[in-house]
Amino acid sequence: MNFKLTLQYDGTDFHGWQTQGDLRTVQGELTKALSLIEGHPKTVHGSGRTDAGVHAEGQVASVNLQREITCEKLRAAINANVGKDVRTLSVEEVPDDFHARYSARGKTYVYRILNTPVFSPFWSRYAHHDARHLDLDRMRGAARLFLGVHDWTAFSAAQSDVEDRVRTIASLDVEVVSDERAKGPLLTITASANGFLRYMVRSITGGLMAVGRGDLDNEAIEEAITHGRRHKMIATAPSCGLTLLSVSYD
Amino acid sequence: MNFKLTLQYDGTDFHGWQTQGDLRTVQGELTKALSLIEGHPKTVHGSGRTDAGVHAEGQVASVNLQREITCEKLRAAINANVGKDVRTLSVEEVPDDFHARYSARGKTYVYRILNTPVFSPFWSRYAHHDARHLDLDRMRGAARLFLGVHDWTAFSAAQSDVEDRVRTIASLDVEVVSDERAKGPLLTITASANGFLRYMVRSITGGLMAVGRGDLDNEAIEEAITHGRRHKMIATAPSCGLTLLSVSYD
Repeated sequence: MNFKLTLQYDGTDFHGWQTQGDLRTVQGELTKALSLIEGHPKTVHGSGRTDAGVHAEGQVASVNLQREITCEKLRAAINANVGKDVRTLSVEEVPDDFHARYSARGKTYVYRILNTPVFSPFWSRYAHHDARHLDLDRMRGAARLFLGVHDWTAFSAAQSDVEDRVRTIASLDVEVVSDERAKGPLLTITASANGFLRYMVRSITGGLMAVGRGDLDNEAIEEAITHGRRHKMIATAPSCGLTLLSVSYD
Repeated sequence: MNFKLTLQYDGTDFHGWQTQGDLRTVQGELTKALSLIEGHPKTVHGSGRTDAGVHAEGQVASVNLQREITCEKLRAAINANVGKDVRTLSVEEVPDDFHARYSARGKTYVYRILNTPVFSPFWSRYAHHDARHLDLDRMRGAARLFLGVHDWTAFSAAQSDVEDRVRTIASLDVEVVSDERAKGPLLTITASANGFLRYMVRSITGGLMAVGRGDLDNEAIEEAITHGRRHKMIATAPSCGLTLLSVSYD
């Protein structure tokens, strides 16, 4: 039977998604649990990798098991055999041709920035902190430039084995809420695309933050998007602020 | 100069507020930082102790310093010398007779319960988890019984050096919000009183949860409040769900 797992994890204490020898990774933790349940080695496939420190509120993985087991029991068995910083929220039986990575049609990420004088301890694992003034209107204006089909070389990791760097950004929204626990503004940058390159959301965030601070204007952003020339003020924002919200399928 | 500090801390990795030898405590951490700033040993006074694992979004402390320093610089100096799981949000200069504990007029605590099938990793440090059905109307009905002036012996720690166990509960509200990250209901029990005994909010929560599950009725709660006879179904809820929200002063 082929199963689709919807997962959450706090990425703080993981070396990212992908199995890497003895390092603690989300895929490694799940593979260990599923191999125990199945009775022999079993690999779980994620919709894609997330880097060390990146969180997930709705990562999707798939696994094909020989063992007969109900979705409810599988969920409980996985959760009983992994650390409490990763949880299987739901398990569904899916057709045999479903694959978490190859069947994925799009993803949504959020990047959170706590824009307060002091970094609340309740957000230090889950957001990036910047005490400087960030102009929301300027950030929203620049966010519009990212929409559509582009080659994202200037907004991705230099060393990457990916050949095709063209992706379509369907939406990029900059929002702000007053967070009750932090007693101040929490900015969110929410990006949806048919796929993302490594460091793409964090680089876009770095660009938008530079614009928000007034260190960069829209022309520099356009130059990077259109001509692939990344301005040195476009930093890659830290991993802790990034969360994979959801993965969409047909 | 006498200073009032407003603090937040994630209590997970602390052995509570109060200094205890070499154990890592919030008071110990602040005392170390303030002694460094002052140049000789200096004690900071909290509005009251919080137990190991209990959090604070608005704890108040006071300290009297010989050294001339602005509020802004003092805040920055403290934050530079303590772990990032404790933060001084603000510093104010106050009259010499202000004392965080003796001047306090009341406190507000919140107890958070994630009422979902699976415990989201984003709440496991900050809430208690219960997957069972909790009847909100029943809990609200029972909450009203706690209002007013009572001796809270049946809802506090057995071994306690406190002689007077009479406190006045001004409000006790049971609310529910749909938490976006946990994708499910987050219950909050918010209690305000002129003071609290040790384990008081956690015992009241244990009572309300038993009522919510249908394991206890209002009569058993009244029996405990009025006659000091605590029913065995009234558990002391775990510390991780508890947060000190604020302390009020004249």
